[in-house]
Amino acid sequence: MKLEVLTIGTELLLGYTVDTNAAELGRALAAAGAEITRRTTIADRPEAIRTGVAEALDRAGFVITTGGLGPTRDDMTKTVVAELFGKRLVLDERLLAGIQARFDRMGRPMPAINRTQAEVPEGAVILPNARGTAPGLWVEDAGGRVVVLLPGVPREMRGLLVEEVLPRLVARQGGERRVVLSRTVRTTGVSESALAERIGPIEPDIAPLTLAYLPSVEGVDLRVTAWGLELKDAEARLAAVVERLKAAVGEHGYGEDDADLAAVLLEALREGRHRLGVAESCTGGMVGERITNIAGASDTFIGGVVAYADVIKTAALKVPLETLEAYGAVSEATVRAMAEGAQRLFSADCTIAVTGIAGPGGGTPEKPVGTVWLAARVHTATRVLKRVLPGDRDEVRRRAAQAGLDLLRRLLAE
Amino acid sequence: MKLEVLTIGTELLLGYTVDTNAAELGRALAAAGAEITRRTTIADRPEAIRTGVAEALDRAGFVITTGGLGPTRDDMTKTVVAELFGKRLVLDERLLAGIQARFDRMGRPMPAINRTQAEVPEGAVILPNARGTAPGLWVEDAGGRVVVLLPGVPREMRGLLVEEVLPRLVARQGGERRVVLSRTVRTTGVSESALAERIGPIEPDIAPLTLAYLPSVEGVDLRVTAWGLELKDAEARLAAVVERLKAAVGEHGYGEDDADLAAVLLEALREGRHRLGVAESCTGGMVGERITNIAGASDTFIGGVVAYADVIKTAALKVPLETLEAYGAVSEATVRAMAEGAQRLFSADCTIAVTGIAGPGGGTPEKPVGTVWLAARVHTATRVLKRVLPGDRDEVRRRAAQAGLDLLRRLLAE
Repeated sequence: MKLEVLTIGTELLLGYTVDTNAAELGRALAAAGAEITRRTTIADRPEAIRTGVAEALDRAGFVITTGGLGPTRDDMTKTVVAELFGKRLVLDERLLAGIQARFDRMGRPMPAINRTQAEVPEGAVILPNARGTAPGLWVEDAGGRVVVLLPGVPREMRGLLVEEVLPRLVARQGGERRVVLSRTVRTTGVSESALAERIGPIEPDIAPLTLAYLPSVEGVDLRVTAWGLELKDAEARLAAVVERLKAAVGEHGYGEDDADLAAVLLEALREGRHRLGVAESCTGGMVGERITNIAGASDTFIGGVVAYADVIKTAALKVPLETLEAYGAVSEATVRAMAEGAQRLFSADCTIAVTGIAGPGGGTPEKPVGTVWLAARVHTATRVLKRVLPGDRDEVRRRAAQAGLDLLRRLLAE
Repeated sequence: MKLEVLTIGTELLLGYTVDTNAAELGRALAAAGAEITRRTTIADRPEAIRTGVAEALDRAGFVITTGGLGPTRDDMTKTVVAELFGKRLVLDERLLAGIQARFDRMGRPMPAINRTQAEVPEGAVILPNARGTAPGLWVEDAGGRVVVLLPGVPREMRGLLVEEVLPRLVARQGGERRVVLSRTVRTTGVSESALAERIGPIEPDIAPLTLAYLPSVEGVDLRVTAWGLELKDAEARLAAVVERLKAAVGEHGYGEDDADLAAVLLEALREGRHRLGVAESCTGGMVGERITNIAGASDTFIGGVVAYADVIKTAALKVPLETLEAYGAVSEATVRAMAEGAQRLFSADCTIAVTGIAGPGGGTPEKPVGTVWLAARVHTATRVLKRVLPGDRDEVRRRAAQAGLDLLRRLLAE
């Protein structure tokens, strides 16, 4: 089946908000066998919404919208769609009670403005929203034309999509479902060109599947896509290509699909019954943040020190003052001492240490902005690595955190 | 002037990559007086690119594309646009020398595949890319129709947009330039509905400007937009509305436009000649990361401890074991002790401490997932705050970090 997506919000068109909902919808709908034939972004003005929804309905007969369901004056998708379908807005008492109960739980009075969120186009299917006050709505006319209205808040949109919309879409397609399905091999610590030289010989064999190189601060992802095949056929072909790619990328590959390097590393640490402590300077907490972003990290991760000022490098991590004076804070000797100091402080057998110059200031001809020293330590074995990382301050920091996690992953894998 | 944007990449359509370039382009083009009349996302297949570019050219006469300029086989925008304009691809020797020099600087041999990046449609204006190997291209035909090709890598796209594309667009518009301009008042620690009750009385006075409420994990942004006015008129009207909004939101407002709460806090600390240390548990380094994301943080931020395991709370932060046993790690007593411990450890006069249950596990009826205790300390004054934050693990952590920064901001402002 084919459909169009309209993401509604002047903030999207003007670029003040990144349209994460568009990506979320693309991924989920493709996996459910629905093809997005067009994605349009329009302003949250009644006339723009009316034109956008009407045109998309004419072309595709099935439209999913996001945004414009909140309680404030700039939210008017519901009103416009009701008019378009010639339906009245009616107050739904159960919805109203639910919204009231939500405010009661938070111990706050319900603002009068939230009452309008309980109004729905007559005959619409209400898609309950466990994560917010605005429900989703499935509005269908006698001719089978459908507009599904979802809220713009990402976690609410996602919940409604997965729990309410996708099951209905799959049911609607019956037996004829063909899917667009992708798999990803994730690499880090290697350039796009170097990967292309490893993978080039395989590429001609991949058709009718397609391959894309997706570089980011985390590394280069290789994504293979199967188009319009039956589910089992798509899965089998993808699995075969993924195996060939993994063999070709070798030690640079750290996982597949949504794999997070921090989660991969945590799993490797867990298998070896290791415990981890970190010492960070230029990344300022980012390595710890990456690790603790994984649920259940507490069985393996003990803690971290953000030794931003040199005085903390000496006081908390026992980096010798002579080392700092002789070699500087961004040096092999300092990063080694940081990794060892973290091992003592946290009684951890494994540590990661990062020190570098994130910029924009602080660079010198010998140590330009982007210079980062990394260390990983497992028991008494230390591996150090110097990288000169490209990008602005944020990118240098993200690349440095990823490189630190990767260094320990590679050391553990040996 | 009006134009269309095409973001090219199957990964965007399938949602595997979030289209940050679309937002970046929207913001920059609106500020430069260009109106994006449509934004379309298409797959990186030659026929899809050909159709997409040709249709957009027919409608608007001016198209900006992103993506498909890399060295690998899935990158073919340049070839397709050259065909569409009936131009040959020719090797540009200066470009080739530049790409070669880039690889020389990194001390790596240039893969043969990168040579194709030096080929350009005959007569195209080359937009030099200081951040990567693929240049941008400005291709124009005798009838004045233009396609501007930009790379898909965000930092390269952004650099070319600002340095090469925007100045040419402004020059092209001459004297008749009208702008779409927005200003934002940023708030945190207050709900969208509660803000609406404060601001409701002002809303009718704002026209012809429009107001949008944009909730996120950082708080609720209030964005005012002026449409199609002359630059000076737009700026004056926006400034007046922003002042009224700031007065209405009061203590909940922390800044304007792109203001980052961490930067606002650092500035306040700097003014009072304070120095900051942090103690984090559930946020795992995120508070330190937020602060050190600001260039120049090192004059104010000393360091942080990620006391993830309780043993580090007692060992490094000297939280009494009895406190942890009597009240638990997520409690007012513990967060107070963490804030005090960080003050001693870092010899800092100001500290932030955060402890909570980010989930998905670890919640109890008394302390459900999302329960967070925050403390801010300035000299001997401590303020604590309990919040029950909504969202998944990542959102709870982001909201907690923001709330910790905000608590110290409010305490310093008193």
